[in-house]
Amino acid sequence: MRTKLLSMLVLMAALVVSGPAFAEKLQDDANQLFKPIPYAPPALKDNPMTLDKVELGKMLFFEPRLSKSSLLSCNTCHNLSFGGDDYQETSIGHGWQKGPRNAPTVLNSVFNLAQFWDGRAADLKEQAKGPVQASVEMNSTPDRVVVVLKSMPEYTALFKKAFPGDKDPISFDNMAKAIEAFEATLLTPDSRFDLYLKGDMNALSKDEKKGLELFINKGCADCHAGVNMGGEDYYTFGVVERPDAKIVSGDKGRFAVTNTAADEYVFKSPSLRNIEYTAPYFHSGKVWGLQEAVAVMSSAQLGISLTDSDTKFITAFLKTLTGVQPKVAYPVLPPSTDATPQPEWK
Amino acid sequence: MRTKLLSMLVLMAALVVSGPAFAEKLQDDANQLFKPIPYAPPALKDNPMTLDKVELGKMLFFEPRLSKSSLLSCNTCHNLSFGGDDYQETSIGHGWQKGPRNAPTVLNSVFNLAQFWDGRAADLKEQAKGPVQASVEMNSTPDRVVVVLKSMPEYTALFKKAFPGDKDPISFDNMAKAIEAFEATLLTPDSRFDLYLKGDMNALSKDEKKGLELFINKGCADCHAGVNMGGEDYYTFGVVERPDAKIVSGDKGRFAVTNTAADEYVFKSPSLRNIEYTAPYFHSGKVWGLQEAVAVMSSAQLGISLTDSDTKFITAFLKTLTGVQPKVAYPVLPPSTDATPQPEWK
Repeated sequence: MRTKLLSMLVLMAALVVSGPAFAEKLQDDANQLFKPIPYAPPALKDNPMTLDKVELGKMLFFEPRLSKSSLLSCNTCHNLSFGGDDYQETSIGHGWQKGPRNAPTVLNSVFNLAQFWDGRAADLKEQAKGPVQASVEMNSTPDRVVVVLKSMPEYTALFKKAFPGDKDPISFDNMAKAIEAFEATLLTPDSRFDLYLKGDMNALSKDEKKGLELFINKGCADCHAGVNMGGEDYYTFGVVERPDAKIVSGDKGRFAVTNTAADEYVFKSPSLRNIEYTAPYFHSGKVWGLQEAVAVMSSAQLGISLTDSDTKFITAFLKTLTGVQPKVAYPVLPPSTDATPQPEWK
Repeated sequence: MRTKLLSMLVLMAALVVSGPAFAEKLQDDANQLFKPIPYAPPALKDNPMTLDKVELGKMLFFEPRLSKSSLLSCNTCHNLSFGGDDYQETSIGHGWQKGPRNAPTVLNSVFNLAQFWDGRAADLKEQAKGPVQASVEMNSTPDRVVVVLKSMPEYTALFKKAFPGDKDPISFDNMAKAIEAFEATLLTPDSRFDLYLKGDMNALSKDEKKGLELFINKGCADCHAGVNMGGEDYYTFGVVERPDAKIVSGDKGRFAVTNTAADEYVFKSPSLRNIEYTAPYFHSGKVWGLQEAVAVMSSAQLGISLTDSDTKFITAFLKTLTGVQPKVAYPVLPPSTDATPQPEWK
């Protein structure tokens, strides 16, 4: 009797231990591949961060007068109210023109190896100059931007504070540097997945853990790893099987940057952080449902056909990547003056 | 000698007194006509304010998915970053269409006797329903709005909290009520002029006081008085002399609402609060400079031709009407779901 009781106790103890032991194995595996989003941004290349610069950058991020129409700001397509993008197939810009690619989220973008889907901008300050000038986006020019900013005495004072060493602080380059400094602060820590990585075994449900396991074992993590779960390298869209032409949308990706045949249809793998917010998906924005996006990826990139239940588990896991969204005090911008250029809509 | 000294002292005392006495006279006159913007909003008709309702209203005010394109929100044309309007001649909406009239500021708008330039909406909750449906603005429908809001579980919970008595809290009417509750909080107290009204004799410079005196004595205050310095009644645009046809822009104003000949070219007098922010001016938005706007008003409404220096004094005074802009924490909106309607750009 005693022996029986003892062996039962040993069995029960083993069961109690095996739960956590299993969870810890998955958590160990996950920690080999992924890192939680940190609370503070990394240092920026050639752009030391100061509070003055970040605050100015925030104003510029929300400044519609950087666009020719005075209607569009960085926040129009990278809306901080919902995941740092715009819930559009591809962005709508000046004159209601439709841009060529889906707007990537600005959140955590400082961790990407380069910016834009094709990586043509080395960093956020280079990226920030693109949409301001693109004719289908904000459609302005560096000269116009400088005239706009210099027309408001408050900006003169703020640029002087943010760039204390500069003789002529208001410049297109400094605009971009200030925007980069602000954007680098747009981090979303403490998603449920990050809490799990950091040791809270109950942060994920059983189904979500099953999804994480599949995400690792089926190969998703091969392209979506690191702190941003993506954004670390370039890959062919359709490594195994080219997706539907509607989704590929004729876009040859990084080929346009490198002019190398091997880069045809190659894109930077996007971050999966806050993916619940960033529909529609892919560079073309042609897929609206997250489950469908997971299915497309599994056949195109991995050459496998996931069961419906596995797709659901992975989707459930992906929804645990929504972090705490940045808390932003909406900036008050300076009033225009008689010297401020008027909007142009044509 | 003594008598001379005494009379000199009396004279000096009289001068010392006359300074403040003069200032107090002007301040008294001003307090007869104007009232400072209060710190708290007035009670709303049929719409008791609660923090839950205001917070929901803020989300809806910034919610682009209320528009058919999912790109335009109330804040697009009533941008809280610069004076609660859009720095546009007339607003740009769905499909880059140009609306018929200049967007009035949302700031302090709760104090207007009615809403829109022609007063066709009795209050802010009635007003809020207009642009959401107008084809040149957000181009949505009440049904679409309800489908959008019901597609996101977070909104279901928030409407329940904001409208605890309602069986079906998500409705177009309740959307409008929540937006009204938020908009009623958008007050700009403590402008330099208000500090002067409240007793700080040094809040205005000598030139600004001269401008205030002219503003009262020349007749500007006849249409621009009260807490909002305007928005209290309707007046013919061009009481004495019709302004340039370009400025009138063929718009018959309130006539379209009442169908009464006497209301041809009649508009609600706009609030002059934060006027430094609300260029361009008039219902047509055809005048960009504040000095020019003052000159147009003096000839059209008062039948006088102000000297350049008087125009400058009045303009200087008007710039003291910029109050402390609302401090708004940019809201985090719920993620779309598979049930959320997709944007339509056509």
